[in-house]
Formats: sequence, C-alpha cells, structure tokens
Amino acid sequence: MTDTARPASPSTALLTDRYELTMLQAALADGTADRRCVFEVFTRRLPAGRRYGVLAGTGRLLEVLEDFRFGADELAWLADERVVDDRTLEYLAGYRFGGDVVGYAEGEAFFPQSPVLVVEGTFAEAVLLETLVLSVLNFDSAVASAASRMTSAAVDRPCLEMGARRAHEHAAVAAARAAVVAGFAGTSNLEAGRRWGLPTIGTAAHAFTLLHDDEEQAFASQVRSSGAGTTLLVDTYDVRRGVERALAAAGTGLGAVRLDSGDLGVLAHEVRAQLDAAGAHGTRIVVTSDLDEYAIAALAVAPVDTYGVGTSLVTGSGSPTCGMVYKLVAREDAAGVMRPVAKASRAKTSVGGRKAAARRLDEDGRAVEEVLVTGPDDRVAQWSRGRGDVPADLRPLHVDLVRDGAVVDGWTGRAGVAAAVARHRASRDELPRGARRLSADEAAVPTTTWRLDA
Amino acid sequence: MTDTARPASPSTALLTDRYELTMLQAALADGTADRRCVFEVFTRRLPAGRRYGVLAGTGRLLEVLEDFRFGADELAWLADERVVDDRTLEYLAGYRFGGDVVGYAEGEAFFPQSPVLVVEGTFAEAVLLETLVLSVLNFDSAVASAASRMTSAAVDRPCLEMGARRAHEHAAVAAARAAVVAGFAGTSNLEAGRRWGLPTIGTAAHAFTLLHDDEEQAFASQVRSSGAGTTLLVDTYDVRRGVERALAAAGTGLGAVRLDSGDLGVLAHEVRAQLDAAGAHGTRIVVTSDLDEYAIAALAVAPVDTYGVGTSLVTGSGSPTCGMVYKLVAREDAAGVMRPVAKASRAKTSVGGRKAAARRLDEDGRAVEEVLVTGPDDRVAQWSRGRGDVPADLRPLHVDLVRDGAVVDGWTGRAGVAAAVARHRASRDELPRGARRLSADEAAVPTTTWRLDA
Repeated sequence: MTDTARPASPSTALLTDRYELTMLQAALADGTADRRCVFEVFTRRLPAGRRYGVLAGTGRLLEVLEDFRFGADELAWLADERVVDDRTLEYLAGYRFGGDVVGYAEGEAFFPQSPVLVVEGTFAEAVLLETLVLSVLNFDSAVASAASRMTSAAVDRPCLEMGARRAHEHAAVAAARAAVVAGFAGTSNLEAGRRWGLPTIGTAAHAFTLLHDDEEQAFASQVRSSGAGTTLLVDTYDVRRGVERALAAAGTGLGAVRLDSGDLGVLAHEVRAQLDAAGAHGTRIVVTSDLDEYAIAALAVAPVDTYGVGTSLVTGSGSPTCGMVYKLVAREDAAGVMRPVAKASRAKTSVGGRKAAARRLDEDGRAVEEVLVTGPDDRVAQWSRGRGDVPADLRPLHVDLVRDGAVVDGWTGRAGVAAAVARHRASRDELPRGARRLSADEAAVPTTTWRLDA
Repeated sequence: MTDTARPASPSTALLTDRYELTMLQAALADGTADRRCVFEVFTRRLPAGRRYGVLAGTGRLLEVLEDFRFGADELAWLADERVVDDRTLEYLAGYRFGGDVVGYAEGEAFFPQSPVLVVEGTFAEAVLLETLVLSVLNFDSAVASAASRMTSAAVDRPCLEMGARRAHEHAAVAAARAAVVAGFAGTSNLEAGRRWGLPTIGTAAHAFTLLHDDEEQAFASQVRSSGAGTTLLVDTYDVRRGVERALAAAGTGLGAVRLDSGDLGVLAHEVRAQLDAAGAHGTRIVVTSDLDEYAIAALAVAPVDTYGVGTSLVTGSGSPTCGMVYKLVAREDAAGVMRPVAKASRAKTSVGGRKAAARRLDEDGRAVEEVLVTGPDDRVAQWSRGRGDVPADLRPLHVDLVRDGAVVDGWTGRAGVAAAVARHRASRDELPRGARRLSADEAAVPTTTWRLDA
C-alpha cells in the first residue's frame, strides 16, 4: 500500500455532497442557519409501470445517523482542503443532529408524493443530512421495491438473495437487508447475517465441482462436510447424470439440488420426475440464473421449491434508484413564523408546506387513496404526531423515528428488520386487488390531498 | 440504538457469500484445498449496444484486499453461527492471500471474454476472494463504462460527478472514483475527495435560496461567503430574473450560473446571450438535471461549459452492473499438473485454461482485435508476465498487481487513480474510429484467440 488514506473512524459525516457544507457556511454567516426548517423526502413518480414502491432503509439510516459526527480526521481534512471556514469547522466539531424525524414505517408501500420521511430542525442541522438520507433510502427502497414484486410472484415459495457480486460490496449488505424486508427468506451475504441476524444460505459453486477430478468426488466431499441435507449443484456437466450422482452421494435424504443454467422450467419438471422416481420426494429444487420477477412468475407451474435471485434484485430490476428527493418545504421567516416554500419550476412541481400522510381504506380494509394531509403548519405537525382527529377510514402513516435527536427504540437493528418485515406484509396485503400485477400500469391508488382547517 | 452490531473492525472478510466458506471447509477436509488454481474474471458480453467497457475498481480492490482478514469478531460470529467447522476457523484465523494477481491496468477498455483479472493461488486462498473481487469490479466498471461515454460525448467540456444521493452511501464514494478514472473532472462527494484526493465541487441547492426571504438575499449571502467566483443556482423562481440577480450580487466576475431544470438547450442560449449582453463573458454555464450521455451529446451545440451528472452515472446509464464472473479455468490435478477446466453448459460457454491477453493494433496504432492468448499453462503464465515473444502488432494487456500476496506499488491510492486516468485516456484514444458512437452497435473490435506453442 502506498498513499491510501483508509478512514480511521466509522464516521459517516463525509458521505456528503460538498454543497451541504458551503450552504451551511453561508447560512452561519448570514444568520439563517438557525431558522427552523422542514425537509421532506418523497418521489415525484414511480418507475415506469410500477404500481407501488416499498420504503426500506429507514432503520439503517437511523443506525448510520448515529455515526454522523465530524471527528478529528474529518475536521482536519476539511481544514486542509479549505472546504469551509473556521467558524463552520467549529460548528461541525460540535455537530449532532438534535431535531425530529417522522416518516413512514419501514416496509410500508409508498406512492408518488408520499412524504416518506420528514426531517425537522434548524437549517444547519437538517441540511447536512440530505445526501446520507437520500443515499440510504434511494438504494434500499429500489431493492425492496423490486424484491416485493419477486416475493409476490413467488407466492409461497421462498426467495433467497444472492446478488452480492453484482453490487458494490457495501451496497450488497444493504441490499440483502432490503430484500428480507420485502419478504426474502435469506441471503448469501455473511456481513448482512452478522449485522442484522438475517438467515444466511449457500453451499457450493461450479468451481467446487471443477476443482475435483470428477463430480462424484465433489459431491461425496460436500455431503461429508455439510451432510445429506445440503444442496448439490447438478448442472456442471450433465444435469441428468448430476442428479444421479447427487443421489448416489447423499441418498434420498438429499436436501436439494440446484439448477443454474438452461431452460429452468423444462429442467425442473425432468429433475422432479427423476427425483420422485428415485424416491427422493423430499429433495427440493432450487433454481438460480438471472431470475427476475417475470422469470419467477413464468416458473409458477414448474415444480420449483426455491428461487435464488441475484443481479435483478440488487439492481432494482430495471430501476436501480428511487428518485427520492429531499426538499425544503417549510421554514421560519425572520419573525419566527413557519412559511411554506417551493421551487417555482413547472418541470419539478412540488406541493409546498409540511405534510402528514394517511392511507384511505374501504370497508374491506383495502387501500383506495394515498392522502397528503396539508394545512396550517402546527396543525399538520400535530396530526403527523398522532395528535389530531383521524377519520375512521384513514390509517395515519407517520411514526416517530427521532425525537430531539434521540433515535426512537424499535426501528434499528434486528428488531427494526423484524418490524419492517411485518409492516411490509401487512401493507402489501392491504393494497387493492390487482396492485400486485407485474405488467405495467398506473400507481395502485391515486394520491389526493386533504386540508386541515386552521 | 438497540441491538445493532456495528462492525468493530474494518475487516472486509465477511463481504462474502457464505458458499465460499462452505466450499473451503469441504476442500480442507478432502485435501483439494491446496490445489493450485487459476481463477479468471471476465464478462461474457457487453451491455446491449455498448461498444466497449472500461475496467475500474482494480486499485480499490487492492486496497480492500489488505483488509481481507478474519479477526476475532469475524471468527466469533462464524463460530457462533456454526457457518464452518473448527478446522476451517483455524485456517481463516491465519488467512492472508499469498498468491499472485495479474490483470488489465485500471482504466483499460475491455471486450467480451477479456481476462481483466487473473487470480492464482491455492483453491482455499483464491476462492474466498470471489465475492469481493466481483462486487468491486462489477460496480466500479459499470460506472466507468457509462462515464466514458459521457466524457466522450462532452468532448472537451468538463463533466462533474454529483450522483451520491442516487447510490448506496459507500457505493457513491466508489462511483466518484470510477467517474474520475473515466475522465470526470471532479465530484461532489467529500469522502471520495478525502480518500483519493479527487477534486470536490459544489456550491448551493434550491433549499439555500428558499431558506432566505428572497433570491437577492440568498445570492448576496453566497457571494459574501464563497466569493464572486462561485456558481449561483438561478432557476429557483425565474431564470431571467435569477441571472439578473446573480449579476447584481456578484458582478460580471461571477464564476458560473447553474441551470437544473427546464429545456437546458434553449435556456443555455438565452442565458449566454443575457450574460454576454451584461458583459459577463467569462461567466460559465453549468447544466444539471438528469443528464446522460445522450442529453450531453444533444447539448453539444448549446453554449454550455460544464455538465453535472448524477443518477445516470451512478446507475451505469441503464447497465448498473457489468456481469463479470470469477471462474475457475485451470487447477492442479492429483499429480500436480495444471489442467484446464470449464463448465459444460451450452448457455454459459467458457473457454477453459489460463489466458493472457493483448490488443492487436494496426499501422496507425488503432485497435483491431482483442486477442486471447492461450496454450500450455506455463507458457501462457510466462507470456502474461511479460516473459514471452510479443509480435510487433500486439500490445500485451496484463500487468502485475499482486505478487506472492504483496500488492505491487503504484496501483492503489492517489497514484493508482492518476495512472488509471492516463491509461483510460490512452486506451480510448486507441479504439477504432467510430468506437465512441453512442448508438447501439457491436463490440468495437472482435475477440480472437492466439495459441502459443508447447
């Protein structure tokens, strides 16, 4: 190694666009840095043809938020590079987010304009979080939105996440978590297993078979090492011979065979027949090989037990990012009164002002509308916090995530993942019939607004 | 925070698919773990319509390879979860890659089947690296391949990377580096600036203007803070008024104005005329707003000075991963003789055996063929290391990256980025005329094979 500066601290503070700091410097100098601000995270549209999105990453965001501190290393680099002036460095040295965050519970479905996260604090403390908030939510939600379509297409068959090799090495860890939030049963990624207790899976690649002098020796070795319950990869040479050898090595108690190439539907039928004829009725069939939600749906009638999904999952199945933005929607004026604000551009129309949100349900408990709750800032803020009248057909969507800078219990770590898994299942079940169709269509419910009185 | 296990060490060892470890366990038990193996990284095809790919991430891979150690925390987790047995844990505790790596120099163009990385070592030490190698190269190369098309379309105008918010927070850092490798002039990402000394850029977002009572105050504040050479974002309300106010605040010495919405081509002409009429001939025009290589090309006739690119860059402009695979192509047999190996599947045809590579050039120094050099293992290995006869029209492509486990100087850190920038420029200049067209076409040169004699 020569001159590589590996980060000495786990600080996440420099995972930030430079302009957040230059804006901060100017605002500290002109006196606006302390103005109370409301920033809202939303997406203007769903990816073409998608009927709903899935919010993921909230718990992970709250975890990395704890490390959003400017330590000695970060401050020294900013000073050396003259990114900001001394006054700003001093502010950053004492920085800790002390504001409030509410948002959709992780795992919740979202639609265009849904205010999935609302960050409130001084301009200084809230503007700095823009990049990190968007990086986490845009990536994790892109993966979860794709994953939800896959688990939906798979119905009751488990889906396993195997995409680490097709994503940045740390993005892969987050992708595994997002996949599980949206219903995946496990992941090949060890770090994701360690960090959040996700079930990890995996047995062998073609390299293991090729390493050995023949397939018999490879299978025998794997069964000795992992037991007959293992999954043997049978398509290195010839599938039919591979299945024969797998059964010879493990007996009819073989856990599973994996198919990673060829016409998976045809092969699954042939292999099932071969396994059954040999009495291996309990041996499962795992298929992998560039699956996506459409391929999974197409295999519905094949005797497949488990789907392993890689590339299309970690790349959001055609939509690798969510397009969420972090917009200032309200801020104090010089007199201390909260004012709605919005950019004027026609191309990027945004509704100004703080918003709460609710899902309107019909008598059967099915979602019929995404309701943006607007009105006087203080009333909306209260409603968002659960202190307001809630019509019987509305399910409020905001939950407390950070209060006065303290992360609320239950959303992070393993507990956070478990809560998100449950929330996603309930949220998806609540969508209108037809919302889970894979073919291109409009958002499953329209987004409307409801104005609270002054 | 509740039960989140944040990694206590910077170890990259668990950024790995579980099956690498289960294969290792079986191979340790059956005696094949010590067989010398050659793994090759290549892609079977370029993304649809692309004419070349750009290898990026090699330097970053060598950096994270240094941290690929199983420390106490990693071993304890693997033991607790019973991922592998005690013998394997013991092996992992002492693990350090001790083999050799050769590969294309970072920044080099690649084509289908190009052996961009060749890892040689025992099965045990080489198989463990599969996931990490692919994660790094697939992501970084996807970004660099897109970035190269953008800088090519921009010709001499600088491109700036601004995509952090649309990628996982750590992927964003790698994306900034990959973009610079492929010719970008700078990045908004501070961590990328810190880690590799990349130039960082950025001034203000719409939120800064909206924070203030009016645009005049916002611009005056920014100019006081950052000087007249700053870039003012002029499209929050009305572009024409915005430019007037920008000039009022900074004078004709204003560094640049930024346009982030609307019809950028039309606006650029109008703004240029307005700036020139005011005497601000030196004030540049920066455009941002969902640019990709096609939008950049379409703006060639507009008076634009700088392109800021975000989403399409960090998502590989439609191809967010490279499809590179890590395949065992040769290994020792029981007698210690190296044997070529390959999976038999028709769908995933691979050429077995170790390969070197060269680019065949015509008399003008233009690339005409990608040549895979095959033959007896020892001869190919020597040729790959520069110890073989090289025909005058061939430019060998492999360089030494790791020798006996030690990273070769010059490929990592800032020096590595600088070398990759230079290599990319030279490699792209060498491509045949027409290789840089944006419209869909075949790989710019065919891939052929050349067999060395025994």
